[in-house]
Amino acid sequence: MNYYEQHRQDYLEGLKTFLRIPSISTLSEHKPDIQKAAEFVRAELEKAGLQNAHLIEGDGNPLVYAEWLGAPGKPTILFYGHYDVQPPDPLDEWKSPPFEPEIRNENIYARGSADDKGQTYILIKAVEGLLKQHGRLPVNVKFLVEGEEEVGGKHIESYVAGKPALIKSDAAVICDTEMFAPELPTICVGLRGIVYGELIVQGADHDLHSGVYGGAAPNPIQALAEILSALKDREGHIKIPGFYDKVQPPSEKEREAWARLPFNEQEYKEKEVGVKELVGEPEIPLFERLWARPTLEVHGIRGGFIGEGAKTVIPARALAKLSTRLVANQTPKEATGQLQKAVLAVCPKGVTAEFRPIHSAPPSLVNPDNRFIQAAAEAMRQVFGKETVYIRSGGSIPIVAAFDEHLGIPSVMMGFGLPDDNLHAPNEKLHLPNFFRGIEAVARYLEILGA
Amino acid sequence: MNYYEQHRQDYLEGLKTFLRIPSISTLSEHKPDIQKAAEFVRAELEKAGLQNAHLIEGDGNPLVYAEWLGAPGKPTILFYGHYDVQPPDPLDEWKSPPFEPEIRNENIYARGSADDKGQTYILIKAVEGLLKQHGRLPVNVKFLVEGEEEVGGKHIESYVAGKPALIKSDAAVICDTEMFAPELPTICVGLRGIVYGELIVQGADHDLHSGVYGGAAPNPIQALAEILSALKDREGHIKIPGFYDKVQPPSEKEREAWARLPFNEQEYKEKEVGVKELVGEPEIPLFERLWARPTLEVHGIRGGFIGEGAKTVIPARALAKLSTRLVANQTPKEATGQLQKAVLAVCPKGVTAEFRPIHSAPPSLVNPDNRFIQAAAEAMRQVFGKETVYIRSGGSIPIVAAFDEHLGIPSVMMGFGLPDDNLHAPNEKLHLPNFFRGIEAVARYLEILGA
Repeated sequence: MNYYEQHRQDYLEGLKTFLRIPSISTLSEHKPDIQKAAEFVRAELEKAGLQNAHLIEGDGNPLVYAEWLGAPGKPTILFYGHYDVQPPDPLDEWKSPPFEPEIRNENIYARGSADDKGQTYILIKAVEGLLKQHGRLPVNVKFLVEGEEEVGGKHIESYVAGKPALIKSDAAVICDTEMFAPELPTICVGLRGIVYGELIVQGADHDLHSGVYGGAAPNPIQALAEILSALKDREGHIKIPGFYDKVQPPSEKEREAWARLPFNEQEYKEKEVGVKELVGEPEIPLFERLWARPTLEVHGIRGGFIGEGAKTVIPARALAKLSTRLVANQTPKEATGQLQKAVLAVCPKGVTAEFRPIHSAPPSLVNPDNRFIQAAAEAMRQVFGKETVYIRSGGSIPIVAAFDEHLGIPSVMMGFGLPDDNLHAPNEKLHLPNFFRGIEAVARYLEILGA
Repeated sequence: MNYYEQHRQDYLEGLKTFLRIPSISTLSEHKPDIQKAAEFVRAELEKAGLQNAHLIEGDGNPLVYAEWLGAPGKPTILFYGHYDVQPPDPLDEWKSPPFEPEIRNENIYARGSADDKGQTYILIKAVEGLLKQHGRLPVNVKFLVEGEEEVGGKHIESYVAGKPALIKSDAAVICDTEMFAPELPTICVGLRGIVYGELIVQGADHDLHSGVYGGAAPNPIQALAEILSALKDREGHIKIPGFYDKVQPPSEKEREAWARLPFNEQEYKEKEVGVKELVGEPEIPLFERLWARPTLEVHGIRGGFIGEGAKTVIPARALAKLSTRLVANQTPKEATGQLQKAVLAVCPKGVTAEFRPIHSAPPSLVNPDNRFIQAAAEAMRQVFGKETVYIRSGGSIPIVAAFDEHLGIPSVMMGFGLPDDNLHAPNEKLHLPNFFRGIEAVARYLEILGA
């Protein structure tokens, strides 16, 4: 048993403690838990043997920083993770409580297990292992762990935009993506961006009786439905004028590599997604729809009477939360403007409608030939015993674009989640063999880089 | 001052006591208030001098019965009202609390003031006045007051369907409609029916991350929007196949009378409805849209994440509450079937959708030449000093169809509400001059009938 194998029980206990903190960044009543989670990460970094571990306070949730800079002449790696999590609702669909981690079938179930506490913990334990074994690291290392990833990451973004000397480095390593398949080492080279906001529709200035006014009064729920239907057709094409103009299609080489990925569509559809039929632009292959095409999705909708029984009201107002995922070379600014304009253009008569953005992030694409990415691919190949594949992700990790823009460094996305980890959904889990091997792979990565 | 004018303060105090009971029939936690309201009505009827006052218990909220049968050879009138009310939400839009009646500018503000506690109380006090003054009534009278009008009235419907001898009578008087304009005596001769239910859309079997699955996973909120848009076009035409086939247009005479009604569309639009623009089938005149055309309205919608901030989820499920108002000669059964079939036909791929009916009522039309209606028109003319007009109402009073079908009696709809009474909405009110004169008009009606 190597050092990492000997310490698996400790890693598990530490992770459980981390997962028990309900650090939900979207709900303001969880502010104390955010603070607790930040403090936990700081203490773990210190315990791992890193120096200068401290919280960076600012306008938002604290960032956690720590460093080890004892390898002059060697590259400096900036490790990124986040300690905040999504809300757990709907609560009644969890098989075990979201903040009471439970192990079933080699998986640890808890909110944040894969996204991103488990993966952040991998980074900390990899560095700790090297320091405890050798008293030093093969390269220089900095940690920057944030607590607002699930709400748009404003604090880290403004911090990074200031280009502080403290975080100057040669490459970032982000552990917040997934492996394409179990046991298949994977590096993610592209992410979608996002514009998230609220679409608010106002009808009459007060609620109305549907019997007395039905046939003359505008219904904002119906209007919202009409707007949503007008913005995207039944085949999944976004009908916002100009929206696809700057979309950069994947290269032929990338398309061919995606077509070779080990993939069982039947199983994906029925087991992972859990539907009878996949949808989306029928003329576009699946991976391209997920990784290289923009989306327009409604995340929530509310209006009128939704209690028990019946109430015959025409409500005054309705609201939807919606986002569009962006791909290279779309920009959040242009997409927001196009969406806002389109909402006005398709708004039915008798109501007013407005899209109000909440947060956004640009898309990103990195070049797989970069030496920091090549070293990561090699480290994962060695630990997992298989050739590393390059994929993209349909999700958004805003910090990747910020590191590129403000620090001028590439991001290496080594992920150890799995496609069925239920991110943002009930019963989120992390596959424990990935967790343990992930720690070894990150340590191996630093060794290869420092060689 | 006549007898009724002398007792106005007593009437007001009694009404306030009635309005303080939050007898919301759509919320099961208000069961004790329902019982309290029923008991209040029973006690008031007894106090008024009626006999055999008792609750009729059954499968649902109790009916309240009382009678005075001391006029052999004279007609028997069945007075109908309801003691249950709509939920008061949204609570924060009430200027005074919904169950703490407050008088402002000759109006009494409270949930149920117009619909229907105030109007039910008019009937009781009219009869009480005659009995206290003369020791007898000019005709025979029965009361049947229910507590489920706002939830479909199942109990009274099944009770009436049994054609019990107890409620045998010559005509029903229903005090649950409104005057077309202040001071304008009005009788309602037509009501729309209704089918109310839930439209449930199911996508994947669990919530999904919109970044990872957006572009492949069906979105049930989007699907619900598509279904709602497909069932009704942007001009307000219902696109359910065959839906208009049995719709009976109003007669030319009725259309002409409606066109002569005193009406300021500008004021109606801006002050009463509170919108910049009225909507609905553009080729159909306003009163016909409101009184003689079916509707399809969404009353509430719910799905996904609707909390504070952002959550990037594709929910597994979405739900809308919706109804269709029916006009002669549509039937709830046929309309329900047509709607259910249309929902299946327009359901987008990747999801399942189902319309589940909650309650329904047929539409009704009565002949204004009937003697019971003529007497009512005359009584109102005498008390209000103006010719009585005949209108229809866009709302639904299911019991009218039941009285027709099971008891074979016409319903006289003498209403004392006003168009801006905010039924089913915050700040419901009753105009006090209408309340006081309504009591006199109902008493006068019985005198005319018994003459």
